[in-house]
Amino acid sequence: MLPSINIRPEEFRARADRLLEHIRAERLTGVVLFDATDILYFTGGAFIPTERPIAFVMNARGEQAMFVPRLEVEHARGQTRFERVDSYVEYPADPHPMQVLEKTLADLGIKDRVGADHDGYPWILGYRGPSLSELSGAAVARVNGFVEDLMMVKSEAEIALIRESVKWGNLGHRLLQRYTAVGVTETQASLRASQEATLAMLDALGPLYRSLSMFWDGVYAGYRGQIGRNAAIPHALANNITFQPGDLLVSGAGAAMWGYNSELERTMIVGTASDEQRRMFDHMLKVQEIGIQALRPGATCAEVDRAVRKYYEDHDLMRLWRHHSGHAIGLRYHEGPFLDIGDGTELKPGMVFTVEPGLYARHLGGFRHSDTVLVTDSGHEVLTYYPQDLESLTIR
Amino acid sequence: MLPSINIRPEEFRARADRLLEHIRAERLTGVVLFDATDILYFTGGAFIPTERPIAFVMNARGEQAMFVPRLEVEHARGQTRFERVDSYVEYPADPHPMQVLEKTLADLGIKDRVGADHDGYPWILGYRGPSLSELSGAAVARVNGFVEDLMMVKSEAEIALIRESVKWGNLGHRLLQRYTAVGVTETQASLRASQEATLAMLDALGPLYRSLSMFWDGVYAGYRGQIGRNAAIPHALANNITFQPGDLLVSGAGAAMWGYNSELERTMIVGTASDEQRRMFDHMLKVQEIGIQALRPGATCAEVDRAVRKYYEDHDLMRLWRHHSGHAIGLRYHEGPFLDIGDGTELKPGMVFTVEPGLYARHLGGFRHSDTVLVTDSGHEVLTYYPQDLESLTIR
Repeated sequence: MLPSINIRPEEFRARADRLLEHIRAERLTGVVLFDATDILYFTGGAFIPTERPIAFVMNARGEQAMFVPRLEVEHARGQTRFERVDSYVEYPADPHPMQVLEKTLADLGIKDRVGADHDGYPWILGYRGPSLSELSGAAVARVNGFVEDLMMVKSEAEIALIRESVKWGNLGHRLLQRYTAVGVTETQASLRASQEATLAMLDALGPLYRSLSMFWDGVYAGYRGQIGRNAAIPHALANNITFQPGDLLVSGAGAAMWGYNSELERTMIVGTASDEQRRMFDHMLKVQEIGIQALRPGATCAEVDRAVRKYYEDHDLMRLWRHHSGHAIGLRYHEGPFLDIGDGTELKPGMVFTVEPGLYARHLGGFRHSDTVLVTDSGHEVLTYYPQDLESLTIR
Repeated sequence: MLPSINIRPEEFRARADRLLEHIRAERLTGVVLFDATDILYFTGGAFIPTERPIAFVMNARGEQAMFVPRLEVEHARGQTRFERVDSYVEYPADPHPMQVLEKTLADLGIKDRVGADHDGYPWILGYRGPSLSELSGAAVARVNGFVEDLMMVKSEAEIALIRESVKWGNLGHRLLQRYTAVGVTETQASLRASQEATLAMLDALGPLYRSLSMFWDGVYAGYRGQIGRNAAIPHALANNITFQPGDLLVSGAGAAMWGYNSELERTMIVGTASDEQRRMFDHMLKVQEIGIQALRPGATCAEVDRAVRKYYEDHDLMRLWRHHSGHAIGLRYHEGPFLDIGDGTELKPGMVFTVEPGLYARHLGGFRHSDTVLVTDSGHEVLTYYPQDLESLTIR
């Protein structure tokens, strides 16, 4: 057997078994999952969403099938372990894919009460079609909540993949910092760092590596426009800004690892920080540490965010507050639960979160580190290990 | 005024006017658009979809508003021309974003009959929440069809952006071909070509350029695993394969240009094609030419695909057929209508399609060129201009 770091077949089987228990407990006749991440989680198959519906189907006897367009049949057989791969000719060709799916469902005895992550294939990229309930008159019970709950607690193998992702994100970030300099542009530094880190990772991991990500074929490291005063905008798109002395930078780095993600973000400064920037940076470090320390089994997501918000309130910083303390991460780069006062989910060992409270001041820039943190039996473990102090993050 | 190649404010206003006519014609009280591409089309603002709902809202008096989370307020004000930017604190913080949206809608007089692209914010990246109809009891009329119909016919300015995208995709593909060689890996060639082309484009266009794409910050050129026998799988994820003599390659290149896309794909061969590969390549060239020649105003999408399929049938090639002849392209990299026997849409001047019939043989590989083609008053214009012949696409 070849060495592998991917999730093993037993684990995929165990996931399907949990879903089957849910089908039976809820007295469903089966489930239909349309979301590409849900499909990857239960089948190991990575499909790029297009106008052509793709679904994973399981009935109450545990029989599984993939439902794909003709052009994905070989791909589906190659990537998943299913004997049954049903296909339709094309979208929007006649018959409509959903009519073909109806046959598959009927054939598997899935009717009346059906579980689904979406009531029909979502209308993306030009797709239009009937919902599952319109199609067959079946009552559709949403199983998103159950599936997301399953995904929340990561197995040893999943955590190992996130740890592996962290390493290569760290390399990407190290190179990003090295190539960031006055006069260089955001894109030059980002592309060079991402490219070199990706090639190093592929050479290091060789056959052990697959991205299985729609978004990243390897390592990503960059700024996405969060430079200078633009750093005060938490979610920006890249802008090709030239680095200047005094620029405050908010970086981001990660690597897709068999579909799994990690997150590493750092606030950096080109040249010397002003006293005011230094004060903001210190606040940011302290409030992130509060968030990290609050992560332990038995606490709730809301409690973590409340502890973080209390720091802002105690130091009269709420005017610089923009977003909650973090989010879970795994096959999705953002997933629930959220470290947010509105999320009462109890923390459990195996959950993985970003912890990233930020401060945003219009004429200073944004201040945010993001680390990927695992909830353990005894508390937590910070999986990312890039330096956090201003001295280490200063670009001379 | 600074020079600009972006869509001008008048054109955004004209788009909103068309939407307003639809609101009035359908006797709606207003519309809510949640999809990031729909929002970009009507506002010029590019937002990365997350668990935090974002919406563009317009009522029957033509009053417009953006609805965003607190962290996107400055970004929304900077990117769009709206006076009204309503915001909620955070998701899932209390009150739920949809409750805040309800207030915005009530305030704008949007109730009873509401148009929307989705009935509520789609459940992505951990988001969960009520649909619009659950929220207010309003009847929700889907306006996707209307919005997609509007987007189908491109303006002069949109076509100019697609032409600009084509040029830089051409550069990316030229470099991709140059760096593809025996012993080099897919990722080396793809990253090097994409990086160099992106940096050249940014230096050439300078302040004229913005990507506004979630997927690409510049030029993309690569193979996505469609190499050797894998080329028989039309939609693959990258695999870091090392090029070998005899490999059949299917490439893809493009550049994001203020959100607009183009598509260029070529079948290439490393070394010498076998006679059988040469025959397949010739069939592919001929059938693509049939598809291109069939594009003219007044014809239907179905007629184009029928003409293409007839070639497969006449030459006993249907067993190598996998997908329809092409799709529209613009702000989305796939959009409707589709060059498919099931799509009766009439072709109009200003529509832009990929034309890309393919042949896929298990032991030979895949054969597909994709060109971006504009429907004109008198017929069509092929916007891409990369060489198509086997000689030019042979890597020695």
